[in-house]
Parts: sequence; C-alpha cells; structure tokens
Amino acid sequence: MFETLHRRVSKKGMPPGTVTYVGRKQSRAVSLDAIHIVPEGGPEGVRRETPTTPETCAAFAKMPGLTWINVDGLHDPDCIVRLGEVFHLHPLVLEDIVHTGQRPKLDELDDALFVVLKMLRYNEAARTIEDEQVCFVLKENLLLTFQEKAQGDVFGEIRKRLLAGAGRLCKGGADYLMYALIDAIVDNYFVVLERMGEDIEEVEEKLLAAPTPEELETIHALRREALFLRKFVWPLREVLARLEKGGYPVVADSTIVYLRDLYDHTIQVMDTVETFRDMLSGMLELYLSNVSLKLNETMKVLTMISTVFIPLSFMASLYGMNFKHMPELETEYGYYVVLGVMACTVTGMVVYFRRKGWLGGKG
Amino acid sequence: MFETLHRRVSKKGMPPGTVTYVGRKQSRAVSLDAIHIVPEGGPEGVRRETPTTPETCAAFAKMPGLTWINVDGLHDPDCIVRLGEVFHLHPLVLEDIVHTGQRPKLDELDDALFVVLKMLRYNEAARTIEDEQVCFVLKENLLLTFQEKAQGDVFGEIRKRLLAGAGRLCKGGADYLMYALIDAIVDNYFVVLERMGEDIEEVEEKLLAAPTPEELETIHALRREALFLRKFVWPLREVLARLEKGGYPVVADSTIVYLRDLYDHTIQVMDTVETFRDMLSGMLELYLSNVSLKLNETMKVLTMISTVFIPLSFMASLYGMNFKHMPELETEYGYYVVLGVMACTVTGMVVYFRRKGWLGGKG
Amino acid sequence: MFETLHRRVSKKGMPPGTVTYVGRKQSRAVSLDAIHIVPEGGPEGVRRETPTTPETCAAFAKMPGLTWINVDGLHDPDCIVRLGEVFHLHPLVLEDIVHTGQRPKLDELDDALFVVLKMLRYNEAARTIEDEQVCFVLKENLLLTFQEKAQGDVFGEIRKRLLAGAGRLCKGGADYLMYALIDAIVDNYFVVLERMGEDIEEVEEKLLAAPTPEELETIHALRREALFLRKFVWPLREVLARLEKGGYPVVADSTIVYLRDLYDHTIQVMDTVETFRDMLSGMLELYLSNVSLKLNETMKVLTMISTVFIPLSFMASLYGMNFKHMPELETEYGYYVVLGVMACTVTGMVVYFRRKGWLGGKG
Amino acid sequence: MFETLHRRVSKKGMPPGTVTYVGRKQSRAVSLDAIHIVPEGGPEGVRRETPTTPETCAAFAKMPGLTWINVDGLHDPDCIVRLGEVFHLHPLVLEDIVHTGQRPKLDELDDALFVVLKMLRYNEAARTIEDEQVCFVLKENLLLTFQEKAQGDVFGEIRKRLLAGAGRLCKGGADYLMYALIDAIVDNYFVVLERMGEDIEEVEEKLLAAPTPEELETIHALRREALFLRKFVWPLREVLARLEKGGYPVVADSTIVYLRDLYDHTIQVMDTVETFRDMLSGMLELYLSNVSLKLNETMKVLTMISTVFIPLSFMASLYGMNFKHMPELETEYGYYVVLGVMACTVTGMVVYFRRKGWLGGKG
Amino acid sequence: MFETLHRRVSKKGMPPGTVTYVGRKQSRAVSLDAIHIVPEGGPEGVRRETPTTPETCAAFAKMPGLTWINVDGLHDPDCIVRLGEVFHLHPLVLEDIVHTGQRPKLDELDDALFVVLKMLRYNEAARTIEDEQVCFVLKENLLLTFQEKAQGDVFGEIRKRLLAGAGRLCKGGADYLMYALIDAIVDNYFVVLERMGEDIEEVEEKLLAAPTPEELETIHALRREALFLRKFVWPLREVLARLEKGGYPVVADSTIVYLRDLYDHTIQVMDTVETFRDMLSGMLELYLSNVSLKLNETMKVLTMISTVFIPLSFMASLYGMNFKHMPELETEYGYYVVLGVMACTVTGMVVYFRRKGWLGGKG
Repeated sequence: MFETLHRRVSKKGMPPGTVTYVGRKQSRAVSLDAIHIVPEGGPEGVRRETPTTPETCAAFAKMPGLTWINVDGLHDPDCIVRLGEVFHLHPLVLEDIVHTGQRPKLDELDDALFVVLKMLRYNEAARTIEDEQVCFVLKENLLLTFQEKAQGDVFGEIRKRLLAGAGRLCKGGADYLMYALIDAIVDNYFVVLERMGEDIEEVEEKLLAAPTPEELETIHALRREALFLRKFVWPLREVLARLEKGGYPVVADSTIVYLRDLYDHTIQVMDTVETFRDMLSGMLELYLSNVSLKLNETMKVLTMISTVFIPLSFMASLYGMNFKHMPELETEYGYYVVLGVMACTVTGMVVYFRRKGWLGGKG
Repeated sequence: MFETLHRRVSKKGMPPGTVTYVGRKQSRAVSLDAIHIVPEGGPEGVRRETPTTPETCAAFAKMPGLTWINVDGLHDPDCIVRLGEVFHLHPLVLEDIVHTGQRPKLDELDDALFVVLKMLRYNEAARTIEDEQVCFVLKENLLLTFQEKAQGDVFGEIRKRLLAGAGRLCKGGADYLMYALIDAIVDNYFVVLERMGEDIEEVEEKLLAAPTPEELETIHALRREALFLRKFVWPLREVLARLEKGGYPVVADSTIVYLRDLYDHTIQVMDTVETFRDMLSGMLELYLSNVSLKLNETMKVLTMISTVFIPLSFMASLYGMNFKHMPELETEYGYYVVLGVMACTVTGMVVYFRRKGWLGGKG
Repeated sequence: MFETLHRRVSKKGMPPGTVTYVGRKQSRAVSLDAIHIVPEGGPEGVRRETPTTPETCAAFAKMPGLTWINVDGLHDPDCIVRLGEVFHLHPLVLEDIVHTGQRPKLDELDDALFVVLKMLRYNEAARTIEDEQVCFVLKENLLLTFQEKAQGDVFGEIRKRLLAGAGRLCKGGADYLMYALIDAIVDNYFVVLERMGEDIEEVEEKLLAAPTPEELETIHALRREALFLRKFVWPLREVLARLEKGGYPVVADSTIVYLRDLYDHTIQVMDTVETFRDMLSGMLELYLSNVSLKLNETMKVLTMISTVFIPLSFMASLYGMNFKHMPELETEYGYYVVLGVMACTVTGMVVYFRRKGWLGGKG
Repeated sequence: MFETLHRRVSKKGMPPGTVTYVGRKQSRAVSLDAIHIVPEGGPEGVRRETPTTPETCAAFAKMPGLTWINVDGLHDPDCIVRLGEVFHLHPLVLEDIVHTGQRPKLDELDDALFVVLKMLRYNEAARTIEDEQVCFVLKENLLLTFQEKAQGDVFGEIRKRLLAGAGRLCKGGADYLMYALIDAIVDNYFVVLERMGEDIEEVEEKLLAAPTPEELETIHALRREALFLRKFVWPLREVLARLEKGGYPVVADSTIVYLRDLYDHTIQVMDTVETFRDMLSGMLELYLSNVSLKLNETMKVLTMISTVFIPLSFMASLYGMNFKHMPELETEYGYYVVLGVMACTVTGMVVYFRRKGWLGGKG
Repeated sequence: MFETLHRRVSKKGMPPGTVTYVGRKQSRAVSLDAIHIVPEGGPEGVRRETPTTPETCAAFAKMPGLTWINVDGLHDPDCIVRLGEVFHLHPLVLEDIVHTGQRPKLDELDDALFVVLKMLRYNEAARTIEDEQVCFVLKENLLLTFQEKAQGDVFGEIRKRLLAGAGRLCKGGADYLMYALIDAIVDNYFVVLERMGEDIEEVEEKLLAAPTPEELETIHALRREALFLRKFVWPLREVLARLEKGGYPVVADSTIVYLRDLYDHTIQVMDTVETFRDMLSGMLELYLSNVSLKLNETMKVLTMISTVFIPLSFMASLYGMNFKHMPELETEYGYYVVLGVMACTVTGMVVYFRRKGWLGGKG
C-alpha cells in the first residue's frame, strides 16, 4: 500500500524534470505499438506496426490520419526521453509518466492534454486489487498512451474494433479514441467492484450465520481495499468532470456527449465505493453487536447454572461437615427435608428467571 | 443489491451506443400504449390505442395535439432501436434506456429532455424495496416513457384523469404531463417510506421491551434499505433542482411552479431518508447499550451469588475434612458457632452490596 | 413522528392543487379573526372583528390601512378555497396551507410572499415537543395567517400590543407585523429549548451518579426529539436567510434590520440544537463507558473472591475424601498444617492482587 | 451552560428594541471610563476621566482626537438608553448590548460598526471556563466598549500603553484601538487554551497509567468545555474574516494588515479547539479500549483458576461421597492414584493454556 | 504538542510588531549564509559567503543577479530587526518570522511574498515527528529564508546544484529557487510519511497476530501524530493552491507549471495523511473487535467448564452429606448409578453445546 510513498522517496533530491523510473523491475523490454488509421479508409486504411525506435514513431505521426502509439513498460528512461523530444513533451510531463505513483489528474499543455489514470485489476489468487498507471497524451490526430506494465491491458476489444476499420472509432479522431480507452478502463472498474461486491455479500452471509475471527479480518481487508479504491476514484471523477466541461481545443464537441456518459459511469463507481464503505461499517457494527449479544447469552447460561447450583452445593456441603453435634443429621427425615428445601430453591430460581425473561429466549 | 454492477459488467467491451437489454428476463412481450389528446377537445378529443409497431406510434405523434407513448418492457432491443429511429433519439439515449442500472439523471438533448428515474415498490412478502427504472423523453407535444417491467405502474390515476378529457392535465402540454407522472412516482416514495417507517417503529418498540438477535438483523436490513433508498433519492433531488430552475425550451414557465412543489417533495423524501438513517443508528446504539447493561446486571447477580456462597461453601468444606485431630469438631456448640459465623458473613456481604448500590436497583 | 408521511400518503393520486385537509380531526369550527389598523390612528384606529364568511374578510381588506386576518383550524376546505378566491391565491398555495406536513419554506408569488413555519409547544404532560403548522401570506397592507389547530397560539402578546394602537407594530406595515409574529414563534422555540435543556441536565446529573436503564431511554428519547427539532430548524434558517437578504417588494427596507436580528436568533436556535445533539452523544458515550467500567469492577470482585476461595475449597474437599489410606489425615498436626497452607495461599493471592493494582482502588 | 437560553426566555413577549438587562445581578454600580487622546500629543495629549453621566461622555467625544469610552456593567438599562441617545445608537443595538446571550457577530450600521465578542477567563478554582460579553461600537474617532461584568478585564496592558501616550496605539485611530482590544481578547483565548491543554495532557498521562472513573468524568467535562469554546470561536472567526476583508468606512486600510494577523490567530484558536476535540475523542476510545482489555485479562485469570480447580474439586467431592460400596476407597493406593490424576489434569490444562497463548502475557 | 500555545501565551500583552524570539534556547549563534549567482555565468558566476552583519547582506543584494540569503537560528532579535530594516520588511512580518508557532501561510506584501512553512523531521530515537519553521521572503532577484534551528536542513542538494552553477536552478530566478526549496521540504514530508507508514504496517501485523496493550498505545500515539501532521498539511495545501493560481508579480509564469506539480505533491501528502487516519481508526476498531471476540471465547470456555462440573460437584456433595438415613448410600450399586447419572449429564451437556455451536470452533 505504501509503495507509492517509497517510490516518491527514492527520487528525493533530484531536480524536477528528471526522468527516472521508480516502479518495480521489469524483465520484458519496453515495447512500442503504433496504429495508424486513414478515416473513412475502411480496413485497408488501418496499419499496425511495432516500431523499434521513438524516431520511427514520429514518421508515423507525420502521415495524414489518426495515429495511436502505445508504450508498454516505462523502465527505459532513455526511450521515454527520446519520445518526449520527438513529440515535444515538457520534461515535467515525462517525469510524471515514468513516476508511477501519481494521483489521477488532468493537465492542460500548450497544444495537448495530459491525463493520468489508474487501471485496476482484481488478482484472483491474492484476492486483492492491483493498480497500474496509464498516461494519455492527446494531440491533434495523435494519441500517446504509456502503460506501467508490459503484460496485458484492457484495450484488446478496442484494438480489434480499430483494426476492423469501421465504426465510429475509426472516424472519431484521437479524442474519441481516448474516450473509448478511458471507457474501457472505467468499465473494468465495474468488474473489480463486482468481484469485491461478491466478497462483501459472502462475508455478510457468514456473519449472519455465526461471527468468527476470520470474518473480522476479511471485513478489515475489504475496508482497506475500499479505502484504496477511493483514493483512485475521487480524483478520477474530478478528471472526467473537467473533461466533460469541454473547452479544450483537442476535444471535439461531438465527443463531449460521450464524455458526459463516461462521467455518469465514474459517479456510479464512486457511489458504489461509498456504498461499500457504508456497508462494511454496518457489517462491523453488526459483528460487534452479535459478539456482545452472544457474550450476554453465554453469561446468562453461566449465571443461571451457577445461581441454581451454588446454593444447593452449599447446603450439601453444610451437611457434609463432620461436627459431632449436628442434630439435623440424626433426624430420620432430615435428608428428605433437605432434598425438599433444595427442590423449593430450584423452583424459586426458575420462577425468578422466568420473571426476568431469561428463560424462553425472551430477552 | 449488486445486480446493477452485474448488468454493467455484462456489457463490457461493447462499443458505446450498443442497445442491449441487461435486465431480468421478461416473459411478457413489450407493449406499447399511446394516448393522444386534442387540448380543449373534451372527452371526445382523447384517443387511446395500443400500436403494434413503432412506426404506428410515429403516425400518432404527427397529429396535432399532445401524444403520450408508454413502452412497457425493454427486453426487445429491436423495438427500442426502431422507436429511436422514428423519434430521432441519440444512440447513447437508447443505450441508457435499455441499460436498467442507471442513476437518476437529467440530460439535455438538442430538442428534447431525457430523464431517468426510479419507481419504487414495497414488496410486502419479502419486506424489501424494489426499484424499477422509468425513462422520460420530453419533446414539444410528445412524451415517451419507458418502463423496465411490463407489470403495473403508478400511473393509473393519471390515465384515468387523462381519459376523462378534462382538467389541467389535458390542457397543460407534454411538460405538465411529465410533471404529473414524476409527481405520481415521488408520491409513491412516500408510500414506501411510510411502510419503512412502520417497520422502524415496530422494531423500536420491541427494542425497548427486550433486545433479541432478530431485532439486530432487522435493524441491519433496514439500514441497508435506507442506504439503498439514499442512492436513488440524492440524484433525484439534483434532477428536480435542475428542472425547477427552468431554462429548457420544452418546459413552459407555467409548469415551473409545479416543479418547484415537486422539488419540495423530494427534499422531504430526502429528509425522511436521512432521519431514518439517524434513527436507525440511534437504535443500534440503544440496542448495544441495552445489551451491555443487561450483561452488567447478569454479572452482578452472578457475582453476588458467588461472593455470598463461595466463602460459606469453603467453611462447610473445611469442617467436612476427615482429619483425625480437628478439635472444633468435638466441641458441643461448634456447629452453631459455624452457622453463626456464616450468618455474619452473609449479613456483612449484604451490607457491603447495599453500600455499593448493587441492591435495590440503584445502580 | 411519521404522521407527516401518513398525511402525504393519504393524498396520493389526487391532482395537484386539490385542497384536502389531511391533519387530525378537529371538533371546533374554523374561526376567522380580523384586525384592522389605521396607522397613526391610535387606539381608535384599531378594529377587531370575527367575520363569519371569507367574503366579509375581503371587505375588511379593501379599507385603507393594515389588515391582519387569522384563520384558526384548516379542517374546512370549502372555507379555505373561498378565502383563496377572495384573495387571489394560487391553488398550490391553498393545497400547501391545508397540507399540514410541509417543511418550513418561503415561496415568492406574483404580488405576495408565502411562508410556512412550525410553531412548537412543549407538552409538559407527555414530555414531548408538539408542532403546529402556521402559514403566512404577506401582501401589500394585508397579512393572512393560517393555524393548524384552533386552540391557542403564541401571538397573544402581539394582539395586545396591536389593540393598544401604539408602538412600531401599528405603524410598521404588514411586513413588520409578520416579522413580529415570526419573532414570537422563534422566541417560543427558546422556551422549548430551555425545557429540553433542563431535561438534558437532569439526565446528566443522574448519569454521573449511577447509570440505570431509565436514563438510557431518556437519552434516546431526547435524541429523537433533537432530531425532530432539527428537521424544523434547518429549513427555518434558510427561510430567514432569504427573507433577510431582502429584494421582495412587499418587505420594506426598514424591516430588514429586524429580520437580520431574527435571523441571528434562528442561528442561535440551530446552534443550541446541534449542541444538544453533541451533548447527548457525549452522554451516551459516558453512559456506555460507565457501564463498561462497572462491569469491569464487578468482574474484579468476582475474580478475586473466586481466585481466593476456589483453591482453598479444593484443599478442603481433598481432605474430605473418604479413602481408607490417607496418611495426612492420621497425623496429629495435619489439620493445622492445612490451615497454615491455606493462610499462605490467601496471603500470596492478596500480595499478587496488590501488585496488579486490583486492591486499593488503584485500577 | 443553558443560562443563555434562560436569559432569552426571560425576555419573551417584549417588543423588539426593549432594553432589559437579563444577566446576573451585579452589586457594583455601572462605571464609565473615558480616555481621550490627541494624536501626536504625547503623554500630555492623553486625558482619562470617569464621567458620572452619559451626557458628560458626549462632551468628551465632541473634542477633536480619539475617544474611548468603556462601560463596565450593563445592569442599569437607563444609563445604556441614555448613552444610546447621546451617541445615536439604534434600539436593536442597545438591546443586543444588554442582552448578554449573544453569539459573536458583526453588524454594519449607518456610520458605525457593531461587534459582539466573548471574553474568556479560566476559573482556576472551579476549573471551568467563564465567558463575559464585550460589545464594541466603532465610529469615526470614537470607540465605545460595553463589558458585562464590572470586575476586571484584559485591557490593562493597553490602557497602560495608551496613557504612556506614545506608540502606534495613540496614532492609529479608533479602528486600530479596537483591533488592539480584540487582539488582547484573542490573546487571552490562548491562555485559556493553554490551561485546558495542560488539563488534557494531565488526564492523558493518568489514562495511560490506569483508567479510573475520575478520568472518565474529567474527559467528559473537558469535552463539554471544548463544545462550549467552539460555540464562541466559530462565529468569532466569521466576524474577523469579514473585518479583514475591509470595505468599512470606519476601518482604515492601514489597519487591515493587523486584522489579517488577528484573523490568523483566530484560525489558530479554532484549529486548537478542533484538535482538542479530536484528542479527547481519541482519549475516550483509548479509555474504553483499556477497560475492555483489562476486563479480558481479569476474565482470563478467573477462567484459568476455575478451569483448573473445578474439575479437581469435583474429583475430590466424588471420593468424599459416603456410599457404602465404593471399591476405590478401599484400595491402598487409591489416594495416590487420585492425586496423580489431579496432577495430570493440571499439567494438561497448563499445556492447553500455553498453546492458547494465555500464559506468558502473549495475548 | 502544546508548545505553540505556550509560545503564544508568553508574548501576551506586547504590542503587535514586537520582535521577540519565543522558541527554544539555542546554543549556537545565528549564522548568515549568502549565495549570489550571475545567471548564465556558469560556476564562476556563483559566489558563496557567510556575512557577519545584516548590512553586508544588503551589499550583496544590490549586485545584479540572484541573491539567496539564508538565516539559521532566530534567537537574536536584534539581527532580525536589522535585516528587516535593510530589506524593508513590515514589523508584522518580522514578528511572524521570529514567532515560531505560526500556521503555514502566504501573505502578499507590497513588493514581496511572505511564506511560512514547516519542515518536518522524523526523530528515529524518540519515534516522533519534529517540526521546524521556515519562512521565505521572495522579492525580485532576492530570496530570504529564515530557519528556526541552526542545525541542518533539507536544502543540501539544492546548494550543491546551485554551486555547480548550471541547470535551471541558476537560470530560473528567485521564484524558481523558492519553488525548488519548497519542493525539497515537501519531498521530505514523503520521507516522514514513509517512516510513519512503516510504523503503521508494523502495528497492523502485530495486531492481527495478538492484540496487546502496547499496540493500543502505539495506535494512540500514531493517531496523535497524524493529527499533528494534519495541522501542518492542510494550510500547506492552501498556500500552494494560492501560489499555483499565480497573479503575483514576483512569480514568473514559467514557474507556475512547477508550482502546479508541487501542488499535486501536497495533495498527495494530504491524501496519505487522511488515509493514515482512516487506517488507524480501522485498526482501533479491529483491535476492539478482537478483544471482544477473545473475551467471548474466554467466557465460553469458563461457561462450558462450569456448566459441566457444577452439577456434577453438586451431586457428589449431595452424597457426601452425613445424614443418618440416606437409603441410597446403603444400596450396593448406588455409587455406580450416580456415576452413570453423571456420565449422562456430561453427555447431555456436550450435545447441547454442540447444537449451540460452541464446540468445534463454529461460533
């Protein structure tokens, strides 16, 4: 959870604009992936290549039509710096791209928009949520995306549609493409939320049956996860609110209506996260109430047993004493009298408990 | 509760504007219901038909006068798409209509208003609140409504008044009709709130009598329901605040005063939901306090019994030992002395408890 | 508490503007009370009558000078409708007047202001707070007031001052009169708050002495009452904030300074209600802490008694066994040795408890 | 705490602008204190008198130069009314001055500013915070101050500096003088906060040692006090925020920079009060956690003792039975076998407890 | 923690603008450190000196180029006053510089900006966070910094880069230098947060293993620290938000983009502090839940043992009575019957506990 802090600290003392990768070590090389589309060109108008140098990318971008360059892996600062030179990016933007501990944010540059987002993934094995930073640089007819990790993303469906060469995706410009990619990321949030929701419902069912310490730890873990999600979702909402308001030259008015739709989705993500938090708090309270209640019932059982038997035991002990002169012991019906007194005591206790509502599950 | 998330996830990867029904399976066919009114035409000016195709609806809408077309059931995407073509609706609007996991919202379109609301129903059998999505498309002289489920709605009274052909409803235009329908929906919220309020009062009465685990679960369930309601009511308030502010060409100024009244009602709904939440929190605290208190009293009883009898039992055991040489056992009044000591011990204990305020219910 | 919801529900399905009384049944007839004042006219310029029909009232209002018409009881819709016609009131206003479940609010009408407030009364017998709706319609030189219940109000002092025919009240116009009446209502809030404050202080004193379940229920009841008060006070503040900002043609600038003073009072009411809520929460926590602490002390007593006597009893039982061959029993000083061992055990225990801080009230 | 409410209620029914003293009875007479300064006049330019009538004060104020008139005690309404006439104060202002239950506030009058503040004093004897109302009326070259109580204030240092006739205080005008006085009041808040901070730290130290009921009551009392402080500090911040924004003709621009400094101080007061509240809540939670933990430990001791000895006692009782035919009793080594079984039981228990982590303070 | 209050109180009664040092005694003398840079001058353009008097500093500042004068230690008011005279600083600014109990703030002066910040340091020995006040006075080509303590700061890296005479730092002007220094301070916050995060994770791990009172105290201490941090971080965010908005003549537009980056960092600091607070609250709740749960389990063990053995012991005591006439004692198989009854009782109890789910760790 505090990895972000660690990354930030490891950069301390460097001048601003220093492009140093602070994330986890990566084994795979940085890979570039370029898609170029001639609008209205149909499937033939689409070309996909995997350039080996940033400079090849630039040649791509100079051709008329829409270019999308995706960078997988940020662990080669040199490559990022050269990309920055080729596409005229501010050093601070490059620094933000490689620094994977950013909050989601939107920066307006001279002729471009710079967006930082988090892609979420539910790790089924560890039952935790993993995040990966994705940066977007949106220019006229050019979209650059930078992914933290080289393995896999949520853009597969969009690539397929792009390569098919038809649909609004091929006609809509770089801004519409960026919208579609962000939409894919936000859609994936719902997958994560659904998995988390399943965990919450599972815990809740167990909780109503019988509270055990495992449930307590699961609730605690889920709360931490909700806290973690919240940190990403609140600034995301801000980013989309600003995008949806428009006024950026690189975002066409026709895309705004789609961005508004996307904004509605992030609101829904946020609502769900907040509802999760409220539900988890409610469940913790339920858990604690249940424990208190069970404790009370346990104690009632103990008290009833003790209250009934302790006086009886005392009476029995009394007549177990070995005094020479204990006239009761000599009488013929002494034993039966004591048994009778004991029976009366028990009856009295039971009546008392019934009046107090302790018997019959009333209270 | 997480059905909404599930629906959203099932659509993942589709291009925006895809009209796919994500709700529950429906057995009944989609039914269309059209009412056409010539203002000032009296009962004769009203015509009601159940067109079989979207195209028939269009013919309806072309006649001078007010047309209300109600669609029951959204599980036939083809029908919705054709309606969209006939009435020139944006693909994103159609997508929102069939996607039944929307938050209440208001979108301004070119020549129309698009409103998404939730109709609530209290399921008496399951003692839960059920929601159903209702969408409104308001155009000049035309109102389209889309209901998620084919069975029943809360508009019966309004249809009756419409068919009677008189009153403000027939003269007021499509905007007034929309107001009247939303008013019917919000009025039904009060029915749901009243039922929920009854449940809350019932639990509270039981709680003051004697807290049992059932009450705890009921409080928990009611809190979840309040959370659920809140999710619908907050955005509803926003929708009505924006409607009431006016400035939409399809909403006449004369309708604004009615919308303000409606806005007051939603504020009241919201207030009530918040009050419910506060009351339920208060009740949970009361419950826990009660449990703690009862535990304390139980323990006091146990402690008093134990504290009185354990020393007595010890004394009795002491003289139950079988040592050969125990001079006390031989004395003539040893037994009575022991009984006296026991009596003194008990008296001392009772005095001590009285001083501590444990007897007589003082503390 | 949920009476308001009930009233709202009982009106479901009626067209807006329907004037139906939804409050409690009233035995007394609706009574009208009209006071007419010629400013600067002295005591002779004041006339008070109790007109029998709404139309008589209209005649009153047409005379030059200030007219105040007070309606006691709303259970005669016919009378209210006729009043509405005579004084040109919008149907929605009439509906709001008879619908006694309104939130306090301020509506600006064409040539009038419409204010809904709640009058509070502390019911000494039931120790609860009762509310009564009061509506004001303020026009040029005319003030209409509508009270829910026919029995009594807080305006006695003002009537007296009016009939005396002197003072600012007779010169100040209808807006100043409305201010004076609202001021009387808000002043009465302080009476209610003072009574509630006394209850809170009483409970707190008892709580510090010894917490009993009665205090718990009283705190719970007081919290509900504070919640109830809050529902009225927050919108009241809003109403007065808007009034104080001025800009209404029927409110003279010279009255604004008085309204600002009144606004200060409502802020103080609100502050007090919030302070009450904070105090009650604090008291509940104190109560729970006290109960926990007492439980802990009870348990310490039990543990000490048990820990001391259980081993002793065991030893006594041990030598109470009837084995043939128990050499200790035969020795001459066995009994005294056992007594000595017991004494040592007790001493050891006491030393242990003293070290743990359980004796001497240290912890 | 509710004295304020009581005062407000005692005025109920009086027309606005009635000047009635509602505070505590005062034995000392109202005293007037006037200081007149000729700027740049040095020590000779300063004159101090104690006028006996309000009219004498007016003569003072007419002289060129700065006049500060301080009124100690408000229990003589006649004197206040005459002062009001002499200095042309609005009746509502006079009412506010004598009504000592005001919230801190700032009112802009025609040619004056009216400020109500609270002076705080830490009562060392009762360990409570006492408040006293101070009102300022600031006019061109004239400052009137009204203090609730006749005994003592926090202005001593300022009087001394004034009478010395030098420094910015004598050159700065009435607005600078008001700033200096308010600064003295706010500075005194820090004294009160420091004393309260000491109390908090003292309680916290005790709490970490061993929680006793006294600490609980002290925390409760401190929380009430923080609540009490907060009621004065929040509106104070508002008053100073408005003053600091300037735009009042009677406040010179050169004074604004000082007021900004003062505003910073009130923010700091507010921060400290909020920090106190957070700390006290944290301490209550710590207290409760500590009590729970101690309870748990107490119960573990009891459970260990009981679990070890109850089965042993049972065994001993078993062979204490007086049945004729109990073959074990007859055997020669029966006693030793039983002792062995007992030893094994104890060993087993200890092993079990060690595994559960109950021994050795591990959990 | 309340040192700040103490400092404030020690200044009570002094006229505003009095320059009195209120911090801790310092043994080292105040030291001045001046760096002068001729932009584009390379390493030769940089001069570093340690002037002995404020007047020497002034000579420095008069040379063309950028001058940074750093003052270490504030305990020599005379030196500060002379510096103020030399650089034309307002007395209130000087007072704020030496008064080390300020909140972070930004004041706009005539031709300068005045910024107060807190430098944080994690004291590894005491495991606490220490703060030190740093003030910045930014003028055209001149930056003055004032540090509270003479020993060490976080600016080492920047000095090194400055003296190297290259990079943006030497070309960027006084505003860029101030940005770089504040950036160094904020970067150090992340170091402090990382250390604190490690402490939190350490406590959490221990907590999940077994809760002990030490963890409780650590959580309490960490919460206090988070409260302490928050007091500095919230106003810091405000300061940077205002700086980033620009509009100050002494801050160049080219620096704004860097300040925005810095603002993002402070938001992240704030987010982290809030996350820490949420996590610590969650941990406290987990702790309490764990304690409750353990208590419940302890009680179940006790109850099971007691419930099984108390009736058995009673039966044994019963037949340990010494009555002459107890027919059961005489029967040959009485002992075995009693043993059988006891076995049945135990079996019944075990079955009952199993049904209640108390055995087998189910609940």
